[in-house]
Amino acid sequence: MSHVEFRTSPPQYRHWRLAVDGPVATLVMDVDEQGGLVPGYELKLNSYDLGVDIELYDAVQRLRFEHPEVKAVVVTSGKEKIFCAGANIRMLAASEHAWKVNFCKFTNETRGGIEDATENSGQTYLAALNGTASGGGYELALACDKILLVDDRSSVVSLPELPLLGVLPGTGGLTRVTDKRHVRRDLADYFATRPEGVGGARAVQWRLVDEAVPRPAWEATVAQRAAEFAARGARPADVRGIELRELAKTRGDERIEYRYVSALLDRERGVAQITVLGPDADAPAGAAGIHAQGTDFWPLAVARELDDLILDLRTNEAPLGTWVVRTRGDAARVLAYDALLLENPQDWLAREIVLYLKRTLKRLDVTSRSIIALIEPGSCFAGSVLELALAADRCFQLAGVFEDVDPDAEPAAVTIGAMNLGPLPMGNGLARLATRFWGDEEGLAAAVAAEGKALPAEDAERLGLVTFAPDDIDWDEEVRIALEERASFSPDALTGLEANYRFPGPETLETKIFGRLSAWQNWIFYRPNASGPHGALRAYGTGRRADFDRKRV
Amino acid sequence: MSHVEFRTSPPQYRHWRLAVDGPVATLVMDVDEQGGLVPGYELKLNSYDLGVDIELYDAVQRLRFEHPEVKAVVVTSGKEKIFCAGANIRMLAASEHAWKVNFCKFTNETRGGIEDATENSGQTYLAALNGTASGGGYELALACDKILLVDDRSSVVSLPELPLLGVLPGTGGLTRVTDKRHVRRDLADYFATRPEGVGGARAVQWRLVDEAVPRPAWEATVAQRAAEFAARGARPADVRGIELRELAKTRGDERIEYRYVSALLDRERGVAQITVLGPDADAPAGAAGIHAQGTDFWPLAVARELDDLILDLRTNEAPLGTWVVRTRGDAARVLAYDALLLENPQDWLAREIVLYLKRTLKRLDVTSRSIIALIEPGSCFAGSVLELALAADRCFQLAGVFEDVDPDAEPAAVTIGAMNLGPLPMGNGLARLATRFWGDEEGLAAAVAAEGKALPAEDAERLGLVTFAPDDIDWDEEVRIALEERASFSPDALTGLEANYRFPGPETLETKIFGRLSAWQNWIFYRPNASGPHGALRAYGTGRRADFDRKRV
Repeated sequence: MSHVEFRTSPPQYRHWRLAVDGPVATLVMDVDEQGGLVPGYELKLNSYDLGVDIELYDAVQRLRFEHPEVKAVVVTSGKEKIFCAGANIRMLAASEHAWKVNFCKFTNETRGGIEDATENSGQTYLAALNGTASGGGYELALACDKILLVDDRSSVVSLPELPLLGVLPGTGGLTRVTDKRHVRRDLADYFATRPEGVGGARAVQWRLVDEAVPRPAWEATVAQRAAEFAARGARPADVRGIELRELAKTRGDERIEYRYVSALLDRERGVAQITVLGPDADAPAGAAGIHAQGTDFWPLAVARELDDLILDLRTNEAPLGTWVVRTRGDAARVLAYDALLLENPQDWLAREIVLYLKRTLKRLDVTSRSIIALIEPGSCFAGSVLELALAADRCFQLAGVFEDVDPDAEPAAVTIGAMNLGPLPMGNGLARLATRFWGDEEGLAAAVAAEGKALPAEDAERLGLVTFAPDDIDWDEEVRIALEERASFSPDALTGLEANYRFPGPETLETKIFGRLSAWQNWIFYRPNASGPHGALRAYGTGRRADFDRKRV
Repeated sequence: MSHVEFRTSPPQYRHWRLAVDGPVATLVMDVDEQGGLVPGYELKLNSYDLGVDIELYDAVQRLRFEHPEVKAVVVTSGKEKIFCAGANIRMLAASEHAWKVNFCKFTNETRGGIEDATENSGQTYLAALNGTASGGGYELALACDKILLVDDRSSVVSLPELPLLGVLPGTGGLTRVTDKRHVRRDLADYFATRPEGVGGARAVQWRLVDEAVPRPAWEATVAQRAAEFAARGARPADVRGIELRELAKTRGDERIEYRYVSALLDRERGVAQITVLGPDADAPAGAAGIHAQGTDFWPLAVARELDDLILDLRTNEAPLGTWVVRTRGDAARVLAYDALLLENPQDWLAREIVLYLKRTLKRLDVTSRSIIALIEPGSCFAGSVLELALAADRCFQLAGVFEDVDPDAEPAAVTIGAMNLGPLPMGNGLARLATRFWGDEEGLAAAVAAEGKALPAEDAERLGLVTFAPDDIDWDEEVRIALEERASFSPDALTGLEANYRFPGPETLETKIFGRLSAWQNWIFYRPNASGPHGALRAYGTGRRADFDRKRV
C-alpha cells in the first residue's frame, strides 16, 4: 500500500449505503468481504477495517453538510442476523502496533463525531441492531443516542474482546458503558467477560440497550422511534444542504498540497512543515454568502484541508514526529470570517462550520506528534487561526522582523478573538486559552482583556500566549535547536508527555476515552499476552489457546 | 530476595531521620548508598528504591499517629548540594516491568498520603530543597504544599526523565506540574525536556517552586515558613499520640496471618483467599477508649493489617491474580465501631483512623488484581466492612444458607451504614456506593434509603448492592466458574478493564495520576525505546546513545 487516502464519497462506498428520506436518514452497514483496505483478511460478518470506517466518517460528515434537513439517523445492517462483528481480528492481528493505535484513534474520533452531531446539530443517531452487535459493533451502537435490539432469542450485544482476544474494547466501549449508559460496574464487568453476550429483557434491564423489540414489530418500531427523534429536531424542514465537493489535493512524496494548506515532508529531520494560508478575499457580507460559496468558503475549506492533512500525516507519515505550523495572511480578514460565523448562530451552515473546525482542532490535541508553532512576520495567528498556536506544545514568536529578509515588514503579531473564548472547546470542555491558563485566573483574565489587540512578541510573551520570543539574531538557532532536540528524544516518551500536558484540568467522557482507556489499550496491545506469537490476538481462530504470562502487572 | 516486607520503624531506618521539635517535624533524607533493597546498584546522590520509600511511608504514617502535635513537616536532605536525584536508574533499568509499575504505584500512594496529611490532618508538608531535586526528587517536592529552593546558582529542580531516560516522570510529576502548581503547559513542556533544570527566580516565575532563597538566609527562612505553617494548624498543642506498635504477622509460603486478617495463597488456582474478622469485643464507650486501646482498637488494627497485606500481595505475589474476600463476625459490632469513630469528629485519633481506612481502601481500587467478594452466612459486610464488597469487581451473596453446613444459620446479609455514604471516598472524590450508582440517582437513593437494614441476598440483589445471589445449590458451581474464568483471561486485559470500570464518573488529580499518567508510563516502560537492549533506560550511564525506533505511535 502506497498511502491511505481518507477522501471518498457515496458513489465510491463499498461498505455503506446512505439513504435520505425527508428528516430521516438510514445508514446501512453492508461490508464487502473482499473490500479490505489491505490484502490478507476478509471482512466477514460485517467486521470492519480502516477503509470501512473512512466511509462511515465521510457519511457522517455529508449528513451534516449535505443533508441538514435530516434530524434522525438510523444506523443498521444490511446483513441477516448480524449487525456488526466489530473490528476485523485478522486485520488487527496482522497489523503493526502503530497501525492498531492509529486505527483506534480515528475510529474513536468518528464515534465522537456521531455524538457531536446528536448533541450539537440535532441529528440524533439511533442504532437499530437487527442482529448481534459484538465488540466494535456494539461500541458503534454505544455512540448512538438510543440503541434498539431485535429480541429474537439469538441477537445479543457483547464485548468479547477480553475473553476472546485478550485486549480491551478499545473504542470507547468500557467508558461509555459506565459513564454514558450508567451500567453498574459489576454488571459491566460480568458483561465484558461473557463472549456470548446479553440480549432481550436482560440487556434492557442492565441498560445495555434501550429497547428489545420483537422481530415482528421491528421495522415499525424503528421507523416510529426515528420519526419521534425527527419530530424533536428544531431545524426547519426546508433547509438546503451544500455539496461537499471533492477536496483538491496534490500528494507527492515530499509535499502535500491543498488550496490553503500545505505540508513539506522533511524526512531527513523528521519534520512536517505545515503552512496555513489566510483568506485570499474579504469575507462575504452575510450568511447567504457562506451558502453561496459552499466548500470554497475559506473557513470550511481550511477545516477540510487541515482535517485531511492531519489524517494523512498521522496514518502515512509516522516517522515525521514534529509538525511545525506556520501561517501566512491577513489577520483582520481571519477575524472578519470568524465574526461572520459567530454573528450567524441561527444559520445552520455557519454553526456546522464552527463545529467542524472544533472537531478538526480536537484531532490535533490527540495527535501523537509534537506541534511547534512559528509566528513570523506576515502570519495571521488571530482568532480561529490562533487556535493552531494554542494547540501547539510550544510557540515561538519573532520579536521584531527578519532584518535580512524584509526590514520593513510589520512585526509578527497574535490576536485573540472571540473564537478563542469558547466556540472551539477541547475535549475537556474548555477553550484552549482557558486550558492554557488552567488554575491561573489572573493570567486568563489578562489574556481575555487583550482581545482584539494585535500583540507583538513582547506583549504576547508577557501575557503568556507564546513560549519564547527570540529576535532575528537568535531565531534560527533557537528554532533549529528546538527541532533537533525534539527529534532526538524517545518518540514514545514524547507521546506520553504530550498526552498528559495537553489535558490539564477537567476530564470528560471524551478525554477519558483518549486518555485513560486508550493508554491502557496501547499497553495491552503491545504486551506479548495480546500480540506475542502465543498471545490471544494471534491465537484467535487458530484453535490454539493463548499462552499467558500469568503475572499481574 | 525472598519477599519484601513493608513493616519498619524509625530505629530500623537506613535512609531517613525523623526529628520532632514541638509542632515542627523534620524529615531528613540521607540515603545509605549501600542500603539498596536488592543487590546490584548503589543509591548515589540520594536516589531511592522501594526500600527508601518504605521508610518514608512509615515516617508519614507515624507522624500522623504518633505525633499529632506536629503541624508542619519539613522534608529536606542530609547531603550537600543535592536534595534527591529521584528513583535510582540502575535499579529501574535492572527491574522487571511488573516491579517498575508496582514500585511507581506505591511511590504514588505515599505522595498522595503526604497530600492527604496536609489536606485532612493539618500536617502541612514543606519541601526544603537545599540542593538540586531531579526527577522523582522533584516529584516528592511536588507532593508537598510548598517548595523552597535554595538560590545558589547551582541548585535546580528538573524532570530529566524524558531527555535522559526516554520515560516519563511517572510519579505524578506531569500531572502535578500542570494541575496542582498550574505551570503553563508550554513552559512545562520545555521544562520536562531540559535535563539541566530550572532554578532561581525563573523557577519561581514559572511556578515550579514557591520561593528561591539565598543560601545565607536558607535556614532562617525554612524555619520561619515551618513556624508559619505550624501556627496555622488548628490542632491543640497538647495532644498525645499513640504508638504504632509492631504489627504481628506470620508469613509463610501458603498463608499470611495477622490478628484479624488472613490470606491463604492458593498458587495452583492463582487466588488469594482473604478473610477479615469483625471485632471480637464490643466497641469501647467513647473516644477515650480508642486512645486507650491504640493499635489494638479493631478498626485501626484491621486498617493496618489490610494495608500490609495489600502491599505484600501486590509486591510479592504477582501470579495470584484474583483476590477473594470473605468476612466473619458480627455486623452490629462493626456498625457500633463505625458509629464511635464518626460520632467523635473532634477527636484527632478517631479522624485519623477513618482517614487511614480511606487510604487503605483506595489502595484496593488501584490494585491490579481482580477482587471478588463472597458474602456468606456469618459474615459482617456492614458499613466500613461493606466497603470491601463495594470495592470488588463482583460480589456474590448466598441466598439462604448452606443447608449441609449449618441449616439453622442466619442467612448472609449486607448492611449499608454511615461509612458508606461519604467518609471513605475513592480517589474520584465519590463514595464507593455513589460511584456504583453513578448516573443512576434513583438506584442510589433506594440504596441510601435502606441504610441500617440487614439486607438478605434477594433484597441486596434487587437494590444492586451485589452482582449475583445464587442459592446453596448453585453457589459452589457459580463461584468456581467465576474464579476459573477469571484465571483463564489475559492478566493484562483484566488490569486494563478494571482500571477503567472502577473509575466511572469524575476524574481528579489523583485519578489522573493513577489513570492517564500511569497507563501511559506503563506503555512507555514496556517499549523497546525505553527498556529494550538499546533503549534509553539501559543506555543511561554507559556512554552509548539510545537507539530509537523513530516511528510515532
